[in-house]
Amino acid sequence: MRVSQLAQATALAVVLLFANTATIGHANAAEAESMIPQEALDSVAALREQALASDLGYRITESLTTEVGPRLAGSEADARAVAWAIARFKALGYDKVWTEPVTFPKWERRSERARVVGANAQPLAVTALGGSPAGTVEAEVVRFADLAALEAAPAGSLAGRIAFIDYRMERARDGSGYGPGSRVRSRGPSAAIHAGAAAFVMRSAGTDSHRNPHTGITRFDEGLTPIPSAALSVPDADQLSRLLALGPVRMQLALDCGWDGEYTSQNVIGQIDGSERPDEVVLIGGHLDSWDLGTGAVDDAAGVGITMAAGALIGKLPQRPARSIRVVAFANEEQGLHGGKAYAEAHAVDVGKHVIAAESDFGAGRIYGYSSSAPEYAAEADRRIAEALAPLGIEHLPGKGGPGPDIGPIAAKGAAWGWLAQDGTDYFDLHHTPDDTFDKIDPQALAQNVAAYAVFAYLAASVENDRASGFGSAPTSEDGTAIGK
Amino acid sequence: MRVSQLAQATALAVVLLFANTATIGHANAAEAESMIPQEALDSVAALREQALASDLGYRITESLTTEVGPRLAGSEADARAVAWAIARFKALGYDKVWTEPVTFPKWERRSERARVVGANAQPLAVTALGGSPAGTVEAEVVRFADLAALEAAPAGSLAGRIAFIDYRMERARDGSGYGPGSRVRSRGPSAAIHAGAAAFVMRSAGTDSHRNPHTGITRFDEGLTPIPSAALSVPDADQLSRLLALGPVRMQLALDCGWDGEYTSQNVIGQIDGSERPDEVVLIGGHLDSWDLGTGAVDDAAGVGITMAAGALIGKLPQRPARSIRVVAFANEEQGLHGGKAYAEAHAVDVGKHVIAAESDFGAGRIYGYSSSAPEYAAEADRRIAEALAPLGIEHLPGKGGPGPDIGPIAAKGAAWGWLAQDGTDYFDLHHTPDDTFDKIDPQALAQNVAAYAVFAYLAASVENDRASGFGSAPTSEDGTAIGK
Repeated sequence: MRVSQLAQATALAVVLLFANTATIGHANAAEAESMIPQEALDSVAALREQALASDLGYRITESLTTEVGPRLAGSEADARAVAWAIARFKALGYDKVWTEPVTFPKWERRSERARVVGANAQPLAVTALGGSPAGTVEAEVVRFADLAALEAAPAGSLAGRIAFIDYRMERARDGSGYGPGSRVRSRGPSAAIHAGAAAFVMRSAGTDSHRNPHTGITRFDEGLTPIPSAALSVPDADQLSRLLALGPVRMQLALDCGWDGEYTSQNVIGQIDGSERPDEVVLIGGHLDSWDLGTGAVDDAAGVGITMAAGALIGKLPQRPARSIRVVAFANEEQGLHGGKAYAEAHAVDVGKHVIAAESDFGAGRIYGYSSSAPEYAAEADRRIAEALAPLGIEHLPGKGGPGPDIGPIAAKGAAWGWLAQDGTDYFDLHHTPDDTFDKIDPQALAQNVAAYAVFAYLAASVENDRASGFGSAPTSEDGTAIGK
Repeated sequence: MRVSQLAQATALAVVLLFANTATIGHANAAEAESMIPQEALDSVAALREQALASDLGYRITESLTTEVGPRLAGSEADARAVAWAIARFKALGYDKVWTEPVTFPKWERRSERARVVGANAQPLAVTALGGSPAGTVEAEVVRFADLAALEAAPAGSLAGRIAFIDYRMERARDGSGYGPGSRVRSRGPSAAIHAGAAAFVMRSAGTDSHRNPHTGITRFDEGLTPIPSAALSVPDADQLSRLLALGPVRMQLALDCGWDGEYTSQNVIGQIDGSERPDEVVLIGGHLDSWDLGTGAVDDAAGVGITMAAGALIGKLPQRPARSIRVVAFANEEQGLHGGKAYAEAHAVDVGKHVIAAESDFGAGRIYGYSSSAPEYAAEADRRIAEALAPLGIEHLPGKGGPGPDIGPIAAKGAAWGWLAQDGTDYFDLHHTPDDTFDKIDPQALAQNVAAYAVFAYLAASVENDRASGFGSAPTSEDGTAIGK
């Protein structure tokens, strides 16, 4: 291997220091181990303490939830949120602020109502699932304990009736109960149609006990005619279940909602330029849109507030890290990762410039764990980041976790991801409900998140492979993806 | 004093053994001390344990909240609740079941909506106060920290604007925060009118942090033209307050609700006849109506369940107490104690037959304290009741407490009251909100309540003054109130 070849391999390994192993399969790990300069390790403690003492992330979160409020993708408030984010990045002193378009179909919620009719007549607290069509159905309710039970219902067996999945989601720190809970939402409506049902209702995918139903996107399998699909609050699912135990129940479900054309929103991006290699970026972010029922505080104004504040605090340091910190406020995460997909498409040509990417989109609880997709040659740098996070009560959990939702698309193109695991024990009490409001956020926990993101981003942006070597952009293949992908 | 005179004084003292001291001012306490027979004291422990082990009260509460659901006074569900109570008393084996009419003006809630308009446009979670007229007002909001601040606003100073009282109710075991909280609701609208306001909104009188506003009755001072009056949920009051800190806020409040004629409901009464003096009664009860937002579980299906179950358990004892246990499911407590007032009117002639009366209307929390309005001559019997309650974790709190709301009117006519103090720490998280549903009730706490009411009612119905004396009805004056009143 000639010296110039070694230098090239080294530069690749530096820039993609955390990238999926698949992308750097040809790099020589032993020769190209990534390191964090001692100056960066020395100065990160002060940044961590400064972030812990700052209420900046909390105030940004307050501003978005208060001044914009609910910001359903495609609504009038979507545009206000974009304007808010641009103004806020600028006010925070970001070096560059720009937007990138994100186009998606627009879904509107106009009204929603459910009630038991007959001898036990009473209203039920309900919300349409995102993507549901409008429609009014009055029919007998048939209860299923879980998704599998409905999927097992013979075709036509529910003709003209309302399918009700009464699956109770489990509470867990890591949110692991949401997988089966959200599958009811995403797959239940199609299963109901296959069985001939006229409408679909579910016990909300949530862990609370309030009269606040949990919305969220659903999809209908190709070729099916969509049916009105909604979620009952947890106490209303309890009530319906008790009534069904007494005998047949007729329900009226009346939804006015549906798709209406297209809308173009924006990913709003702010960048703190790096001191040495500003075109190489550490990407952090959250999503700017929210569901409409609450003000999207834990989902995901908190993520926007945490990462905007982390970037701003790094920007105010006397010594900038070598690479840039890019903060992305993603458009329309809720209805299908539209912002994350658009970002990955727009940046397919420079995936290799993305050192690592992490999204905060799991509420505002304290971060308890850290991991990344760092390959073997970056293990030492990764371990140093974990060491710098440890004083925040964060455990190193190599091999666990995954990319945040909007990071998924660019991670699939070869970018490495970081995972800063938030305590989600209470997240699904609030997620996608009217109760997702600013008062639910603990300012101390939010500051811990800002400190963790600041430490992570600062050190990742400071990593070098061989301080004597030259640095450069990562080579990319002709189709724009990183070499090795 | 002749023997016959002594006997008459004794009988009065027995029957009114707990009555307000004013009503028995002429009785000789030393000669007529009330006692509880040893057999009753011996057998009450078994009743207490049986009640603690029973889920009867819980099942009655479940039945009312599930099968009838919300039961706003005067609504279609009011009649269903009356039918439910009659059927339930009969099924529980009560000896006598009857109804007594209660007529009141009927108030209806049809729709309600509030939103901030302008640059920070967003919906707010709101509910009309009971008694509010319909109306749509769009105007600037003026915030007041408390009722006194609004009352101090000069006449005309709020012309055309919306008055907002942002008073935060305090949490307390004994519910003491509700006094000032509910005064905002009852007096705020009139104060707003005096200052010229076009509408009134308040931070809900509640201690929760959910998007569930607390309704409740309000009244307008004589001669005023009512204005639309509503309560914001606690998080929405927080939000409005934050927005007001940023600058002027315009709100649109749109209420469709109002008074519509009269309705006649029923107090539903079940009686377990006493073995010796069945026309003398210990009255216990709760109220059958609820607000419409929830299913009225803690307010007050629990009270109905607790007292219906306590009476039923006494009715199944091998040995009945001397006097009758009368359980009243009062009509329309929520809009002005209509059921309690009607009962007191209808029973003005036989107030003297009411040994003591207690209503359970403070939720479903454990009972922590007991007191009564027992006069000196009944102190020993009262102490024995307190002793029998002590194993349930209930402290004797003489001099504390007061009559439940529907007991107030008959207590004002001379009936004694008992106070079984429930832990209300969480009561105002749920009270008058959509969240007042069955799932909030702890079955163990409810069983402890049933045990306490059973012990109390059984021993009060067993009290005697002088076991060798004859017993009879209490003499009443010509206007039907007890002698001495």
